[in-house]
Amino acid sequence: MRIAQVAPLFEMVPPSAYGGTERIIATLCDHLVARGHDVTLFAAAGSATAATLVESRACGLREDPAPRVSPIAAHLAMLDQVRAQQAEFDVIHCHLSHFQHFPLFEGFAAKTLTTPHGRLDYADLPAALARWPDMAMNSISLNQRQPLSQANWVANIYHGLPRDLYRPLSGRPAAGIAPYLAFIGRFSRDKRADRAIAIAKAAGLPLKLAAKIDDDDRAWFHREIEPQIDGNCVDYVGEISEAEKPAFLGNAAALLFPIDWPEPFGLVVIEAMAHGTPVIAWRNGAMAEIVDDGVSGFVVDTLEQAIAAVPLTLALDRGEVRKCFERRFDAARMVDDYVAAYAVLGRQTEPVNAVF
Amino acid sequence: MRIAQVAPLFEMVPPSAYGGTERIIATLCDHLVARGHDVTLFAAAGSATAATLVESRACGLREDPAPRVSPIAAHLAMLDQVRAQQAEFDVIHCHLSHFQHFPLFEGFAAKTLTTPHGRLDYADLPAALARWPDMAMNSISLNQRQPLSQANWVANIYHGLPRDLYRPLSGRPAAGIAPYLAFIGRFSRDKRADRAIAIAKAAGLPLKLAAKIDDDDRAWFHREIEPQIDGNCVDYVGEISEAEKPAFLGNAAALLFPIDWPEPFGLVVIEAMAHGTPVIAWRNGAMAEIVDDGVSGFVVDTLEQAIAAVPLTLALDRGEVRKCFERRFDAARMVDDYVAAYAVLGRQTEPVNAVF
Repeated sequence: MRIAQVAPLFEMVPPSAYGGTERIIATLCDHLVARGHDVTLFAAAGSATAATLVESRACGLREDPAPRVSPIAAHLAMLDQVRAQQAEFDVIHCHLSHFQHFPLFEGFAAKTLTTPHGRLDYADLPAALARWPDMAMNSISLNQRQPLSQANWVANIYHGLPRDLYRPLSGRPAAGIAPYLAFIGRFSRDKRADRAIAIAKAAGLPLKLAAKIDDDDRAWFHREIEPQIDGNCVDYVGEISEAEKPAFLGNAAALLFPIDWPEPFGLVVIEAMAHGTPVIAWRNGAMAEIVDDGVSGFVVDTLEQAIAAVPLTLALDRGEVRKCFERRFDAARMVDDYVAAYAVLGRQTEPVNAVF
Repeated sequence: MRIAQVAPLFEMVPPSAYGGTERIIATLCDHLVARGHDVTLFAAAGSATAATLVESRACGLREDPAPRVSPIAAHLAMLDQVRAQQAEFDVIHCHLSHFQHFPLFEGFAAKTLTTPHGRLDYADLPAALARWPDMAMNSISLNQRQPLSQANWVANIYHGLPRDLYRPLSGRPAAGIAPYLAFIGRFSRDKRADRAIAIAKAAGLPLKLAAKIDDDDRAWFHREIEPQIDGNCVDYVGEISEAEKPAFLGNAAALLFPIDWPEPFGLVVIEAMAHGTPVIAWRNGAMAEIVDDGVSGFVVDTLEQAIAAVPLTLALDRGEVRKCFERRFDAARMVDDYVAAYAVLGRQTEPVNAVF
């Protein structure tokens, strides 16, 4: 198949640091090419891909040294470029969340698939969707669909990681390393590092926090988290690199993911699972779909449940956690699913713009 | 003429508080209706207009209590609504700055006019414009065009205010009020209240600051401005309402506008002039176009020039300042210009989307 992948322009594909969307697009492109598809990636220059790269912007919007950038205008130019080349593609898969591509793609909607990667509970999305109700959409979890259940959902495809990107450590966890719980993310209210600290203290296990401090979150961090960091029971290891992730996640007794927002997927959860590390997650967003309760971890509703889950989680078979990952979150499965979704496209014949 | 006005959805038209764009659109609509045109305004609900209002959103994006709004999706829905009704209009005048309407309006581009109200030096605007190079554009100053000189500029129309919205005070300035210099705006680095203070101190006149303190500007305000406020030579009167403006501007000996950014128009400058109050403005953005040097004020390049201009400005004839306003910045003149621009539209026959 001749497939166009249309990426957001905020980061390169894959991103230099944080950016789950761009990492998934990179994996998808490389796997599709390996399977013999003719793939064109519309993305920021600097992207590294096995696909043919159309450099739609000189660099990612977030890394641009220019004093002023316009995400709207940047995506507009890229989307019109895709439209100009659309006859070259059998499928056009767009990864933008706020539907800016709908008016540009409506002329070839039947071969367009949209995967929004973010939360969908924005006040304005239903009204915009109502103008193009038949655009084929793919969710990254069933929970993600809830605020927009009326959309034309043609698939639900969970993210996947290359099978061998992360492996359980041979010692699992390494001999000589005292058991610890892990937290990874940003120090934002949504991620609830405070809950992770409360769980670890109550469970009597040390906690290692690997997290970024954004400017917006600094005040909250100083007030709620910093006073509890003692370098012993609660240790802040800074922001970790991709190279440090295997040791951090692979040696952890469990990952704590006590989120307080409707996370539509949560890539770090399957990263932990790829290392054989089980997860204790709050019942928010997609967590109940991603974590196999009692196998790859536990999904909890309260602090008490989370604390009670710690010894149970430590007793889980890490080999079974890894097997869960391999069965459900291998990139090969994700790519199978996308190829199947692409094959379903084009069966609709109605125009996709409902003028009313 | 059957005219559609398409407003940004951030504020109501006119806005409840700050918002020059929405104030100008409100004035334009009301005057066009008064002249017998059939005007439809696409804007947020709550807008107050003599035109037929199409409520394109339940409220302005900035006043929405919803935890998450999407400006992209909100404008997308409105723009598609305009497109669905386009046959009802002879002219469609859009006031969005970042070209999101171009793909939706390309099918009837010949009757579309775009007035961007903001600065245009965003890194992504040239690439987006290059996809629709023939879209008819109107600037609010010649200086505004500079970063996008390649656009299809069909008009340059300075803003105007209803002639009798503000009047010189009868005492001009009122007897018994000691002469003072005025500053009005936000306490941002761009607006340079620090320069206003330096000018006033050197000139030996008290300064009254009427300004908003945005969260982003608070640190700068506390460091640079607050220590210099003494309630006497430098007095901070808070954020003033529309009702307080006439006394504040009308009693001032002069308005200081020492900006450090490419302000494309600067509505407060003509508000001062409407009161007969002259302006000392930095040579940035449109200032050299708005201020008639030596008549309605002075345009300066340095602090020394600004200080030297104070006694000259105080000696200006306030009646002549008012006449400048009446001649150049009366809303009736602005509306004349827009009606003339609308009449020029439609002469182009080439498609406006250049596919390359």
